[in-house]
Amino acid sequence: MKTNVLIIGAGGVAQVAAHKCAQNNDRLGEIHIASRTGAKCEAIVASVHEKGAMKVEGVIAAHQLDALDIPATVALIRKVKAGIVINVGSAFVNMSVLSACIETGAAYIDTAIHEDPLKICETPPWYGNYEWKRREEVAKAGITAILGAGFDPGVVNAYARLAEDEYLDEITSIDIVDVNAGTHGKWFATNFDPEINFREFTGVVYSWQNGAWQTNQMFEVPREWDLPVVGKRPTYMTGHDEIHSLSARYSQADVRFWMGFGERYVQVFTVLKNLGLLSEQPVTTAEGQEIVPLKVVKACLPNPAELAPEYEGKTCIGDLVKGKKDGRETEVFIYNVADHRQAFNEVGSQGISYTAGVPPVAAALLIADGTWDVKTMVNVEDLPPKPFLDLLGKMGLPTEVTVNGEAVAVDLAA
Amino acid sequence: MKTNVLIIGAGGVAQVAAHKCAQNNDRLGEIHIASRTGAKCEAIVASVHEKGAMKVEGVIAAHQLDALDIPATVALIRKVKAGIVINVGSAFVNMSVLSACIETGAAYIDTAIHEDPLKICETPPWYGNYEWKRREEVAKAGITAILGAGFDPGVVNAYARLAEDEYLDEITSIDIVDVNAGTHGKWFATNFDPEINFREFTGVVYSWQNGAWQTNQMFEVPREWDLPVVGKRPTYMTGHDEIHSLSARYSQADVRFWMGFGERYVQVFTVLKNLGLLSEQPVTTAEGQEIVPLKVVKACLPNPAELAPEYEGKTCIGDLVKGKKDGRETEVFIYNVADHRQAFNEVGSQGISYTAGVPPVAAALLIADGTWDVKTMVNVEDLPPKPFLDLLGKMGLPTEVTVNGEAVAVDLAA
Repeated sequence: MKTNVLIIGAGGVAQVAAHKCAQNNDRLGEIHIASRTGAKCEAIVASVHEKGAMKVEGVIAAHQLDALDIPATVALIRKVKAGIVINVGSAFVNMSVLSACIETGAAYIDTAIHEDPLKICETPPWYGNYEWKRREEVAKAGITAILGAGFDPGVVNAYARLAEDEYLDEITSIDIVDVNAGTHGKWFATNFDPEINFREFTGVVYSWQNGAWQTNQMFEVPREWDLPVVGKRPTYMTGHDEIHSLSARYSQADVRFWMGFGERYVQVFTVLKNLGLLSEQPVTTAEGQEIVPLKVVKACLPNPAELAPEYEGKTCIGDLVKGKKDGRETEVFIYNVADHRQAFNEVGSQGISYTAGVPPVAAALLIADGTWDVKTMVNVEDLPPKPFLDLLGKMGLPTEVTVNGEAVAVDLAA
Repeated sequence: MKTNVLIIGAGGVAQVAAHKCAQNNDRLGEIHIASRTGAKCEAIVASVHEKGAMKVEGVIAAHQLDALDIPATVALIRKVKAGIVINVGSAFVNMSVLSACIETGAAYIDTAIHEDPLKICETPPWYGNYEWKRREEVAKAGITAILGAGFDPGVVNAYARLAEDEYLDEITSIDIVDVNAGTHGKWFATNFDPEINFREFTGVVYSWQNGAWQTNQMFEVPREWDLPVVGKRPTYMTGHDEIHSLSARYSQADVRFWMGFGERYVQVFTVLKNLGLLSEQPVTTAEGQEIVPLKVVKACLPNPAELAPEYEGKTCIGDLVKGKKDGRETEVFIYNVADHRQAFNEVGSQGISYTAGVPPVAAALLIADGTWDVKTMVNVEDLPPKPFLDLLGKMGLPTEVTVNGEAVAVDLAA
């Protein structure tokens, strides 16, 4: 019997996930989409039909759900007989959706770390604050829970594991770089939920170096990268989810994350941050209204889902992994280049949503066919990377590799 | 019998006005201060006592008042037997306070044009939208209503009139320049209510040139000034209240306003404006909360009243008036230089509040002694300027004049 999938969330990433489930519904069962705003799910269903994305005849349906409401989520999982839940909703709902999966026996996949709305940038490792505390509970329930299975975190974790498995005997550093060289034509916009986007950067920048957590300020440590296809790009050392799991498996290595930022982003971020407008803590207006400034900023900014039609250019995300192979200093760069326009033409979303939305569906397919159905809680680097990367190549996110600066052919067959 | 004064508002300007009334309470009667937040009025009363500002023994008392509530304002004016109301509250309350004055027979003084919270930068001349429509009503009630009697508008209007009366036979241009060369030590702060401050600059920039209203965008027209004491300073052509009355009296002249802005202000304004965060129109958050973004920005910014202790440096505000005298091209610069630290030491406020708060008290004193008690609605340029400027000199805001670049002695005796 094929496994039904429930997608939670209705933003740009959910839209990509729905299209990709539809394109692979010969290997999955029914597709259900649920979010707080039912109409957004309806719109996604309509877009799947519009593109004729369903590979074989089947069910795709929209639902209204407050995913913070565990009993309601349990009831929906049971009602639609979902065997896998792809959680691409707000990062605030992760733990309640996981609870519903544990209760119903459904497999759980997410793409970003759980967050408490009132806390920013908690103690590292972040996975230790919520997710990993529930390992026993997940193992006891015998469900598969794959954490952080988007692109970054997610695919970049698999890249690190591929470097370990195939290219290096010893790893001394993992530098993850994420550059969006696309343009959306707006004065300013974030590529995904502005609230989650800004929350990533308002706290301390954690990196794992010299066997310990190091702290920096945002935009304190710049580094220029010369990347395939997109060329020379400015980046800054940034805090990011995957550092908080890779640092456990590769504790001997330095693990850092570099995000590309244009001047406009730095300008906007600097002003909003310094003025306190990125705060997650409520303020009170002169009229006595209590409100979280960041939620007002979000309300004023363009809806990231609406950027797609005008988005042009490419993204490049990858891991530069350094270490030794056969006793010699070796560096491997494992990466993907994605195209905004191509993503829009295929699934109606921009490239950032595309790179984040395809991988959790690949993970779902690997759970459905048993390859990744490990019946416990894992991060992506804990799983065999080749089946995942091989499948992603077929689904639109091919893996490229250079060793010591030279492109090499990649064999991802198991 | 001495005239009791009611001050409406409890910000930095109200604080200055209260101190100046106290310092001159031999010529005024009781001093009453009212605002929405009674505690702020209490704090002003306490600061007056702390500085020992009352010249002679007398009453100074705090009241809670919603000045949008006309019957409540009427009741308070009657209760405290106020003969003059100095309205330095929010620009949104002007018309309701004026109504209360008309009903009670009290004289009315304000320092900024009336604003509708939901409208920015209405059709010029701005005074024509609210104030001047009520001229008949004011004349019929036989009360004195002096509009825009702060520094700018206010003192700069008197400077223009002084140029007309004393220095020029014919006026071809009036350029008002307002430069704050002080520093407050904050990353960013506005010098008065951020809501009113930003509202000044989010609309079209109106100037009166070539006998007609001209429009520009904010920060479109720069001009560097070389000013006495503060030196070379960058300014931008800006919309401002006084253009909307001076252009009526001096319709043959060009009337422009130039505000000094540092790089930080331009940076902050550009980001907030482009993101829609300066909007006076409500937005709805993802959680369904409706809120005006500008009010959230205000809630996040430093309280201007709290800048005073750290404020250092000087302000220079003046009028460059060009025209002909005895048939020869002549230019007159009439100006004042004020000092932040000196203002704080004297009245506990910074220089911007000081320059705005002293003039309405001077106007009140001139109404009280009959000099300006004209029993009708006027702008400051409609009144004899010398008694006003003479009094201001004695109250801490001396007038300086240069003619064709040469300093000249100023005789303000009537």
